[in-house]
Amino acid sequence: MEKPFILINLKTYTEGTGQRAHNIAGAAQQVAEESGVPIGIAPSYMNLHPLSMHYSLPVYAQHVDGAEPGARTGHVTAEAIRQAGATGSLVNHSERRITLAEIDAAVRALRETGLISVVCSNNVSTSAAAAALNPDYVAIEPPELIGGTVSVSQANPEIITGTVKAVHAVNPGVKILTGAGIHSGECIKIASDLGTHGVLLASSVVKAKAPIAVLRDLVSKI
Amino acid sequence: MEKPFILINLKTYTEGTGQRAHNIAGAAQQVAEESGVPIGIAPSYMNLHPLSMHYSLPVYAQHVDGAEPGARTGHVTAEAIRQAGATGSLVNHSERRITLAEIDAAVRALRETGLISVVCSNNVSTSAAAAALNPDYVAIEPPELIGGTVSVSQANPEIITGTVKAVHAVNPGVKILTGAGIHSGECIKIASDLGTHGVLLASSVVKAKAPIAVLRDLVSKI
Amino acid sequence: MEKPFILINLKTYTEGTGQRAHNIAGAAQQVAEESGVPIGIAPSYMNLHPLSMHYSLPVYAQHVDGAEPGARTGHVTAEAIRQAGATGSLVNHSERRITLAEIDAAVRALRETGLISVVCSNNVSTSAAAAALNPDYVAIEPPELIGGTVSVSQANPEIITGTVKAVHAVNPGVKILTGAGIHSGECIKIASDLGTHGVLLASSVVKAKAPIAVLRDLVSKI
Amino acid sequence: MEKPFILINLKTYTEGTGQRAHNIAGAAQQVAEESGVPIGIAPSYMNLHPLSMHYSLPVYAQHVDGAEPGARTGHVTAEAIRQAGATGSLVNHSERRITLAEIDAAVRALRETGLISVVCSNNVSTSAAAAALNPDYVAIEPPELIGGTVSVSQANPEIITGTVKAVHAVNPGVKILTGAGIHSGECIKIASDLGTHGVLLASSVVKAKAPIAVLRDLVSKI
Repeated sequence: MEKPFILINLKTYTEGTGQRAHNIAGAAQQVAEESGVPIGIAPSYMNLHPLSMHYSLPVYAQHVDGAEPGARTGHVTAEAIRQAGATGSLVNHSERRITLAEIDAAVRALRETGLISVVCSNNVSTSAAAAALNPDYVAIEPPELIGGTVSVSQANPEIITGTVKAVHAVNPGVKILTGAGIHSGECIKIASDLGTHGVLLASSVVKAKAPIAVLRDLVSKI
Repeated sequence: MEKPFILINLKTYTEGTGQRAHNIAGAAQQVAEESGVPIGIAPSYMNLHPLSMHYSLPVYAQHVDGAEPGARTGHVTAEAIRQAGATGSLVNHSERRITLAEIDAAVRALRETGLISVVCSNNVSTSAAAAALNPDYVAIEPPELIGGTVSVSQANPEIITGTVKAVHAVNPGVKILTGAGIHSGECIKIASDLGTHGVLLASSVVKAKAPIAVLRDLVSKI
Repeated sequence: MEKPFILINLKTYTEGTGQRAHNIAGAAQQVAEESGVPIGIAPSYMNLHPLSMHYSLPVYAQHVDGAEPGARTGHVTAEAIRQAGATGSLVNHSERRITLAEIDAAVRALRETGLISVVCSNNVSTSAAAAALNPDYVAIEPPELIGGTVSVSQANPEIITGTVKAVHAVNPGVKILTGAGIHSGECIKIASDLGTHGVLLASSVVKAKAPIAVLRDLVSKI
Repeated sequence: MEKPFILINLKTYTEGTGQRAHNIAGAAQQVAEESGVPIGIAPSYMNLHPLSMHYSLPVYAQHVDGAEPGARTGHVTAEAIRQAGATGSLVNHSERRITLAEIDAAVRALRETGLISVVCSNNVSTSAAAAALNPDYVAIEPPELIGGTVSVSQANPEIITGTVKAVHAVNPGVKILTGAGIHSGECIKIASDLGTHGVLLASSVVKAKAPIAVLRDLVSKI
């Protein structure tokens, strides 16, 4: 049985930039090594290279454009994040939604570049739709719970079980992360027991006074 | 065996507004009556009401927002197009793409309002994704063929058969339209033989000197 | 001295569709006739034609695309709203924001079609920017006050005076509306005294139990 | 008389990533030192830090979001690009257009962070609008000439003189760059003679076999 994957999204939080990004990455690496639980980190584009150089954690972009390299100013190509050391990318986070054709193109570009795709979705049916695009992961996050202190595991376990069932009906090879309000080992245990392969979280670690303490609690029931 | 459905998108073509919209609707109604082939028309929002009043054809909106009624300026609700006499709506046309969450919300709003949803897609994988949202129709249109004189039936039959297979693997209840370059009875015959339930077309009828002649040719092999 | 112009945005409020749209238009027409104050109404696209047919009020679209007629599904052209009887259109409302190039194209398309443009802005500097595009009106609405019960006249008179000054420095021919929270004759009097040419409002009329009573109060100090 | 500023946009060209980005930056630095002409470079987000560390050239982001740091996944804050060593950012490039309110917020965020803003525009009136937002530079680029071999200096000098006049009427403190098709010292000389303060260019340098030769030609008439 594979251990659940914990992916930490630093967003554009002040507490997740500069030296703080390094502190969180260092704490995550230490807890990953102590526990054997795989932990990844999704910093700003500018921090992909420094964090991938200094830490052994897998590093993810927060967004990627599926477009080919070329005359596209301000876009982020899969090849460019790969060169910066990324292992994969979030796609279609609820704070950076893109069109269906763009999600498809981004998943395809990541696959062709040898990178891992994590497509975010907001409910059971969009999770199933995302699974049809054959990404590595679908990450279901009910938008109304993102950034809150009540986790999806507690508030809406049905959306997790519904997503697991719907995603696997469409594409049994896709793994499932769940997110929104995840803040403790108990949240992760519930999510795992409901059939998911890990969690996507942000504020509970990034805004913590002591991220390492939160991280140790997160892995405590795995 | 159900006859294929022909849906005519008037876009914002000059040749599809004002009196011309009425002419095309009238011609379509006549050909539908002569042939027994179901024909629908998707005019501008402003023409939904007049065309639904004057003709017996089903009338579709070209786009709908899934959002609830409320403080949303310039949006188009499912309830509002229903009040204007619409039978359904296109969703996510390649000239009006929206996010995955918005497509899902639009399909849901149409369903709850008793209207028919036609979700447009650009390739096999996005067609499968659209099917997971449980619309009435998925309309596959390779963008590079839209508006051209070579039909998808002739240029890319594999995308049609691939879509039929992929959509039905995800959701056997979803019907499939195909579009892009459709201009003759022969195009429709091929599309039908490949397993689709009709076609979505625009310029070949709208920009024709004699739309009725094109329409008669379109139904000639059904 | 010209009387202030009152423009009522029906948004997609349930209370502003169907028969209710007619009731509000009828009440607005009556109050306009009683008072001599010019009142306009911005209904859904589908209601442009019916309201422009049945009432003598100027009718505005809530949004318009600047693009030329052609292969643009789900778009709204200036020519199409003109054919539906519109006198003008809102552009760039805070609930339907568009790019700078799109605002410019919309203003230009409205002007070339003989329609009135009302470009919405969110602060003093974007008001000045909008004025540089030479629309008929700039409508300044601080987004945080939209839909509330405290009017911009009371909460933030500085933004009104700042806008009047900045807009006229750039383009003295542009008239200024102000909106957000406008709900009484007193709000309009303050806005007028500060140098504006009218108001843009929505919920205070649309969601009122008796729109005509609110409308009579709105014109009471003019 | 200040020498014209040359800003090289690497876009997402393959020829502008990885080692090639370093080669172009090295060539630009050498030519800047030889000629005394100020040259800047706008690489991918991921290359901001490496290029700002290894070269003395000013480095610009290709896009920045005006939003405050916080729960915004995949966004690029002014503070984050400053930490990566950026001197400034392009805003609203025609390949990455944003709303008027977003342009205003980006210019404001750059100013508050001590960074230089270069707002791109597509014609005379949007240039004047951009100037009203008080950026450091407005960069006028007729979209139809971008990426081509005919420069705006030759094809449309009127748009340059019109922009200079309109921008300075709104805000005399704003400097003007011009772009689209710029590929030689002659193009820059014409642009300077018409009253601009420099040029924005991309393909002519990035896709050159020998960027240093193109750069030497670009500065040859200054």
